[in-house]
Amino acid sequence: MPDKSKTVRYRPVDAMRAARFTGIGTFMRLPNVTDTSGVDAAFIGIPFDTAVTYRIGGRFAPAAIREASRLLRPYNVDQDVEIFEHVSAVDAGDLAVIPGNVQASYEVIEKGLSPMIDAGLIPLVIGGDHSITLAELRAIHKRYGPIGLIDFDSHTDTWDNYWGERYTHGTWCRRAIEEGLIDTRRAVQLGIRGSLYGSEDRGGARALGLHLIPTEMLLERGVDDVLPEVLARVGNGPVFLSFDIDFVDPGFAPGTGTPEVGGPSSRDALRLVRGLRSVDFVGFDLVEVQPQYDSGEVTSLLAGTLLYEFLTLIALSCARKTDAGSKG
Amino acid sequence: MPDKSKTVRYRPVDAMRAARFTGIGTFMRLPNVTDTSGVDAAFIGIPFDTAVTYRIGGRFAPAAIREASRLLRPYNVDQDVEIFEHVSAVDAGDLAVIPGNVQASYEVIEKGLSPMIDAGLIPLVIGGDHSITLAELRAIHKRYGPIGLIDFDSHTDTWDNYWGERYTHGTWCRRAIEEGLIDTRRAVQLGIRGSLYGSEDRGGARALGLHLIPTEMLLERGVDDVLPEVLARVGNGPVFLSFDIDFVDPGFAPGTGTPEVGGPSSRDALRLVRGLRSVDFVGFDLVEVQPQYDSGEVTSLLAGTLLYEFLTLIALSCARKTDAGSKG
Amino acid sequence: MPDKSKTVRYRPVDAMRAARFTGIGTFMRLPNVTDTSGVDAAFIGIPFDTAVTYRIGGRFAPAAIREASRLLRPYNVDQDVEIFEHVSAVDAGDLAVIPGNVQASYEVIEKGLSPMIDAGLIPLVIGGDHSITLAELRAIHKRYGPIGLIDFDSHTDTWDNYWGERYTHGTWCRRAIEEGLIDTRRAVQLGIRGSLYGSEDRGGARALGLHLIPTEMLLERGVDDVLPEVLARVGNGPVFLSFDIDFVDPGFAPGTGTPEVGGPSSRDALRLVRGLRSVDFVGFDLVEVQPQYDSGEVTSLLAGTLLYEFLTLIALSCARKTDAGSKG
Amino acid sequence: MPDKSKTVRYRPVDAMRAARFTGIGTFMRLPNVTDTSGVDAAFIGIPFDTAVTYRIGGRFAPAAIREASRLLRPYNVDQDVEIFEHVSAVDAGDLAVIPGNVQASYEVIEKGLSPMIDAGLIPLVIGGDHSITLAELRAIHKRYGPIGLIDFDSHTDTWDNYWGERYTHGTWCRRAIEEGLIDTRRAVQLGIRGSLYGSEDRGGARALGLHLIPTEMLLERGVDDVLPEVLARVGNGPVFLSFDIDFVDPGFAPGTGTPEVGGPSSRDALRLVRGLRSVDFVGFDLVEVQPQYDSGEVTSLLAGTLLYEFLTLIALSCARKTDAGSKG
Amino acid sequence: MPDKSKTVRYRPVDAMRAARFTGIGTFMRLPNVTDTSGVDAAFIGIPFDTAVTYRIGGRFAPAAIREASRLLRPYNVDQDVEIFEHVSAVDAGDLAVIPGNVQASYEVIEKGLSPMIDAGLIPLVIGGDHSITLAELRAIHKRYGPIGLIDFDSHTDTWDNYWGERYTHGTWCRRAIEEGLIDTRRAVQLGIRGSLYGSEDRGGARALGLHLIPTEMLLERGVDDVLPEVLARVGNGPVFLSFDIDFVDPGFAPGTGTPEVGGPSSRDALRLVRGLRSVDFVGFDLVEVQPQYDSGEVTSLLAGTLLYEFLTLIALSCARKTDAGSKG
Amino acid sequence: MPDKSKTVRYRPVDAMRAARFTGIGTFMRLPNVTDTSGVDAAFIGIPFDTAVTYRIGGRFAPAAIREASRLLRPYNVDQDVEIFEHVSAVDAGDLAVIPGNVQASYEVIEKGLSPMIDAGLIPLVIGGDHSITLAELRAIHKRYGPIGLIDFDSHTDTWDNYWGERYTHGTWCRRAIEEGLIDTRRAVQLGIRGSLYGSEDRGGARALGLHLIPTEMLLERGVDDVLPEVLARVGNGPVFLSFDIDFVDPGFAPGTGTPEVGGPSSRDALRLVRGLRSVDFVGFDLVEVQPQYDSGEVTSLLAGTLLYEFLTLIALSCARKTDAGSKG
Repeated sequence: MPDKSKTVRYRPVDAMRAARFTGIGTFMRLPNVTDTSGVDAAFIGIPFDTAVTYRIGGRFAPAAIREASRLLRPYNVDQDVEIFEHVSAVDAGDLAVIPGNVQASYEVIEKGLSPMIDAGLIPLVIGGDHSITLAELRAIHKRYGPIGLIDFDSHTDTWDNYWGERYTHGTWCRRAIEEGLIDTRRAVQLGIRGSLYGSEDRGGARALGLHLIPTEMLLERGVDDVLPEVLARVGNGPVFLSFDIDFVDPGFAPGTGTPEVGGPSSRDALRLVRGLRSVDFVGFDLVEVQPQYDSGEVTSLLAGTLLYEFLTLIALSCARKTDAGSKG
Repeated sequence: MPDKSKTVRYRPVDAMRAARFTGIGTFMRLPNVTDTSGVDAAFIGIPFDTAVTYRIGGRFAPAAIREASRLLRPYNVDQDVEIFEHVSAVDAGDLAVIPGNVQASYEVIEKGLSPMIDAGLIPLVIGGDHSITLAELRAIHKRYGPIGLIDFDSHTDTWDNYWGERYTHGTWCRRAIEEGLIDTRRAVQLGIRGSLYGSEDRGGARALGLHLIPTEMLLERGVDDVLPEVLARVGNGPVFLSFDIDFVDPGFAPGTGTPEVGGPSSRDALRLVRGLRSVDFVGFDLVEVQPQYDSGEVTSLLAGTLLYEFLTLIALSCARKTDAGSKG
Repeated sequence: MPDKSKTVRYRPVDAMRAARFTGIGTFMRLPNVTDTSGVDAAFIGIPFDTAVTYRIGGRFAPAAIREASRLLRPYNVDQDVEIFEHVSAVDAGDLAVIPGNVQASYEVIEKGLSPMIDAGLIPLVIGGDHSITLAELRAIHKRYGPIGLIDFDSHTDTWDNYWGERYTHGTWCRRAIEEGLIDTRRAVQLGIRGSLYGSEDRGGARALGLHLIPTEMLLERGVDDVLPEVLARVGNGPVFLSFDIDFVDPGFAPGTGTPEVGGPSSRDALRLVRGLRSVDFVGFDLVEVQPQYDSGEVTSLLAGTLLYEFLTLIALSCARKTDAGSKG
Repeated sequence: MPDKSKTVRYRPVDAMRAARFTGIGTFMRLPNVTDTSGVDAAFIGIPFDTAVTYRIGGRFAPAAIREASRLLRPYNVDQDVEIFEHVSAVDAGDLAVIPGNVQASYEVIEKGLSPMIDAGLIPLVIGGDHSITLAELRAIHKRYGPIGLIDFDSHTDTWDNYWGERYTHGTWCRRAIEEGLIDTRRAVQLGIRGSLYGSEDRGGARALGLHLIPTEMLLERGVDDVLPEVLARVGNGPVFLSFDIDFVDPGFAPGTGTPEVGGPSSRDALRLVRGLRSVDFVGFDLVEVQPQYDSGEVTSLLAGTLLYEFLTLIALSCARKTDAGSKG
Repeated sequence: MPDKSKTVRYRPVDAMRAARFTGIGTFMRLPNVTDTSGVDAAFIGIPFDTAVTYRIGGRFAPAAIREASRLLRPYNVDQDVEIFEHVSAVDAGDLAVIPGNVQASYEVIEKGLSPMIDAGLIPLVIGGDHSITLAELRAIHKRYGPIGLIDFDSHTDTWDNYWGERYTHGTWCRRAIEEGLIDTRRAVQLGIRGSLYGSEDRGGARALGLHLIPTEMLLERGVDDVLPEVLARVGNGPVFLSFDIDFVDPGFAPGTGTPEVGGPSSRDALRLVRGLRSVDFVGFDLVEVQPQYDSGEVTSLLAGTLLYEFLTLIALSCARKTDAGSKG
Repeated sequence: MPDKSKTVRYRPVDAMRAARFTGIGTFMRLPNVTDTSGVDAAFIGIPFDTAVTYRIGGRFAPAAIREASRLLRPYNVDQDVEIFEHVSAVDAGDLAVIPGNVQASYEVIEKGLSPMIDAGLIPLVIGGDHSITLAELRAIHKRYGPIGLIDFDSHTDTWDNYWGERYTHGTWCRRAIEEGLIDTRRAVQLGIRGSLYGSEDRGGARALGLHLIPTEMLLERGVDDVLPEVLARVGNGPVFLSFDIDFVDPGFAPGTGTPEVGGPSSRDALRLVRGLRSVDFVGFDLVEVQPQYDSGEVTSLLAGTLLYEFLTLIALSCARKTDAGSKG
């Protein structure tokens, strides 16, 4: 039985050899590698922000989140795992999206992600506005077909269009369902709250087959009560996790484009993510950070930590597989 | 039976026709109208900040809150109501208060609000420091007599004077009681916490007849447990709601003048306000925002959302009346 | 001879009646009027920012500049003129551009400006990124044909395309020349400096017929020496003035998208503009402010003051015409 | 029986005589006194920040916390005590630590604190990075021997060294245990969470004898459940309380050097501290505030309030002693 | 002949003994002394800001300027003088002005300054808004009668009233002339520019007898050309220097209440002040700093440096007197 | 004759292929290469900030300057050169300095730079505080012996020690002279101004043999007058250029540790650097940026642009050599 830990090729610079503020700012100071060989998971920036409807500036989010991620260390104390004993991860840099052009950027995204997905590695996308998720799902779909979705977001993003624009951060989810990219029976949307354009907003989301767990329901029932429902919903097949940072209350995540007050705390978010240990994830994204509205890097650090928790889920999954293999 | 929705004259610019960041920044992009005809509720700014005892700058709060309110949409998902199906609302602009002169400004406020109140519309005041509430209550009193009060605030504002100054943001409540504007048997003050000038501060508030629910009691018992007590206290008559943003923890609302750490969350505040559905409100204010100390607009957005929830309460009340009418 | 001052219909709220921080934040607190009757000049916001190549966020510039413009008073001491004795001006609000869609927004701009221009009033556009100038010039062209141009900018904006995109803030000037909107013999570009994509950048601008006065030449020769050259170049016909705030050094104007250090001071800019008294302007724009990168409103205030100086130029022109008339 | 309140010599400037924003910014506007006579408790700044491993800037924390402390008033409503009826407190200024030199600064700290401790007064140290606690404990040890410790911190600070440096903000606790300064049987560490350098980090802390209550355990069990365990652990002897502000979630305390998202709220922290009424404290410190990363002073105000709660604990203890005396 | 330097009692903490960021934040870390014996010059804060007409917040300026002044060192290289060899200076703290009450605060100021002036020491006032200068001049007048004035300001502050308020930061100079406090033949006002309420604004100032040197005249002629005119104007008698920080361009001094773009640089300001070596100053103030709008402390540092240059002028004057004495 | 441009191996990512905000943030998006082969010049970060005496935080300056440098384009319009036609440049990352330990970090710096210098490439150091220059000069000295120095700085940095610490950002220059690293006959220091610790500060610098051109002399005489003196002083041998960002006025460069108001503008600085075309530089550094005090990235952008101008000087020198070769 091969010792997995020996074959892991990529891990962060050791903070005991070079202080965390030194060196070029890749995610967690992982190697900047675009080759897919020997890689289990790759962070990749998609600094696209054209498709927003209010505040803008997510094009600088990957850089800001990478800077904040310098703080993260390799052992996840809450999940009790030495991440890089189990997973080989890199920072693959950014995709060269074209500001102002959604369709051309969608092509760039699809072409950029497909080789990674084909090579069997799990992309951890650092957005960018939420419109990019559609292109990501298209790339995912080519390999996996319609998949499960866990979408953390204070909005349903199922509007049909804005001023005639059909591909925006508020319509991607409707488009993805229309394109058959999501298996809505295995989809769940957590976090809706606040004010909407109209009651058809929520109703429309449900009509599309989305299972909604609004913020108030989530917080009244509690994380422990909601988690089994999420797990049951997505079941055993491949799942994509999309995390819009505006899911979290702006007290914890001010640096975003369409904040909604009265949301979950950072800890609520982390506990929900940590509870998804058993899900078979094939991709992740973290979207809608806008560092221009952040303060003291709190939003970027939360975003970086969530990405770190996603990587931990991959590490745990790798560990299970190795374990299963060694027992087999 | 007249169709109320047809007679509603004023509603915000449609975000599907003009993106929310466009246009002159009135509250929620409502029409800037000073006429009272066909209006149920009017937002009105009172940019007065002379009467504070520590930080200052609330004169720019109405402008900041209006900017942040661009984000708000017409359907309130948590209360499940299409607001402008039921209420005709406008932004009546600001009252031309006189910086540095409390008494002259009180006259401006009283004269500015009275015609509105006489016309039967409900004012939603965007302060300004808390001293303005006294002048608002004087205007309210002319029509309604002594009324009930729900005051969200981390301070009781019942001090007698500061350095001989009797009309300040820390004394208005004592003055209002002395002037007979408040029916203390129907008054409740929520949120006191932290440090005071002396024990007589709290004792004095109680001696004046105020019913206090301190922050610690509120959070230990929980929103659901406290709400019935509040509702019972204010009963069925006309009630004024005053909301000092420092009721909320500075983690959620840093942009204020005399912050007190260890307070309720934004969500706690929203849940309390949403629970007041059955109260017969005749006026509202939201005071003590200071945008100079805000970050990423979180305080202004919270303030705007609270005002939005106040408007929702009016809409729900209008809906009930229409409903009652149609059944009658 | 009619007394012009009596027929002037629109002027700002009097700061002696209502403190400048009160009231809805139109430009200089002018009336928000979209009708063109009785109007000489109209401020109009074009909050479009899709076509930038680096930092983004100009969609909030009109709102920020309007806020800062509250500080401006009606008498221009350096030009010695009571502006509103001579000019009737309004704030016409914003055009409802469509974020993410350059072509659709160009149509909105052209359709929005044309009625104003047809009515003979002079638009003072508050941008938005520099791409909007192309659409403005198209609207201008319909009435005036090819016109003179004075372009303050640290870049020439004559690049052909970015990643295939031909309509951006860095290509509008080439497009305008190609479309025959500018009479290049009457065009001058002031301020180029710093780093470019290539030497063809500067060369290309000259090949297109632009007369360039780079920052270093401008500052070495001095404002007084350069002004006659500018005036001679544009001559007597109709002229459009476009002012990209990045013309000014980022020490004075940090809130912009592609700052270039080592530029002119605010005072240099003001003196240049004030020296253009004799030019026959038919339109103005002020572009590329990004309030997210501003500090203490200095950039917005400078932008507002420049727009105020543009309005002063119109007032001086109106005064001359009245004067000529009364002498005739 | 002497009336204690009459012999209390030092208390803050009365806010009713001079507004809180006036006067030189000592802590709570207490007298700046270095003499120890007639003093029960002394705030003292230690603006040392050389020994951090990531962000830096705590040298300005004492000044920032003093500024924020102007807001604090003499009556603690949650503990129901008029503080200065029971305790005479001063601001002793700062120790003249030597930036860049840990060992020399440790000597300055030890020499600076010893006379205070010898005089029987209780120091309330305003840090500074966490490395200073080691020097404080050395000074404490000379009088009290090994003492109990309650350490609020999201890290254990028990690493052996960083790049060969053995005296840092991440190693002080290990050094203190090695030097015999702490009675580990009476020590408890609350708040560990997030990411660590390795699993040995947590294990090492436990091997050293520290009793750990991680953030997740603390928040799942709740403050009321955890407090008795803390009290039982430290028992009756002398105890030192060290509070690293990063114990609190960065949503409430962004201004710190190595923030960890997902932590307790300000209120959680206050309730824990208030619950320590019965402990026999001989010293306190509040460390790791970095005002450069703060926003709207929220972190400095929280830090100041925590120091205020520490002083309240001293006042309650003084009151008990007086009370016991008067009964005796 | 007594050796003056030996009798100098007060000087700053030595930066070679205690790093500049340590210690309680008095101006330049001078002793906080209210006694006048042995003192030549005293810094004194007047944190009054009620009388402004636009932005507000100068109540925190003394604290901010004191913090920034930690950077200043005792040898003035441009004037070539070891300041504290010649002058004994202290920080006398703040006057306890009453926010919201101009008249009561004027009394506090007059009563607070008079003993200092009677004792023959020179006050260096740290404002506060410009309205305080009137009260300062009243105190000065009691000893010196009508005096000369050098007023650096981008506004003339000679308006009659605002909304009926006659004592504001924009009317103090008219009031002072009306009260006979200023010998207008020996008065000069430098810096007017930008926009005014009306042409009578400038005309009125001149009608009152003020000699105006507008910004444009000042900068076109240059500092060296203007200085002799200023010196000639104020002549040999006692002179008060009032410096409104908005004299300087907001690029260098953003943190102020009514900024005017297009002003002099910091260096222009310093050179003008340094050129006043021969003037017989009896008092100084530095007003209108508002730290809430500052960035990176640049305004506070400039303000502190200007106050430092004022102190240098006193030191040079003391040196001349000592010198004259030793020669006599 | 070989075509130099063909052998140039390293140049930035083409902005026409990938928008400037995309990709990992190396300096100018140059390749991150530590190998010295085929490299003419290497940017290298030294994020060391332990040795400052006031504000701190330069450890994050290399990251911030790299981010800002994304804006820079390959053609220098003022020097009229396509930089990468002549020079092959890389970003070599950071040296792993040890925070808190000057001596250990000096070793890291010397060891890190020596191989580069031995390989004949020119280092462009991104600091870090000014203390690092001593270690850089030691490395330079090993190859070149005592060299010429052009030091832009508002302080002389020739103090002997601070609190016994001999290796700080204020003493490095004295140490370098004592160690014989600088040929003082070929050394010039530009920019001294403001306040010093004592007159011996300036005198001492001169006694050490430094040629001082204070700010006032520089600005009174003008850049064109001073440049020949600088060039004459340093003559023909190898020269090191050290640029402390506090040379520039804080209006243009607020983000630094010990700002001095009244300094040169950004443009003055650029013109001085551009005028050094003929000097034989063997190394450069840019020090004392502290991004925590910056605003809108203006300081980082100025720093990046200065480094860009240094690279341009190298490119011009390479071009001259190629040219000389091709003519030979």
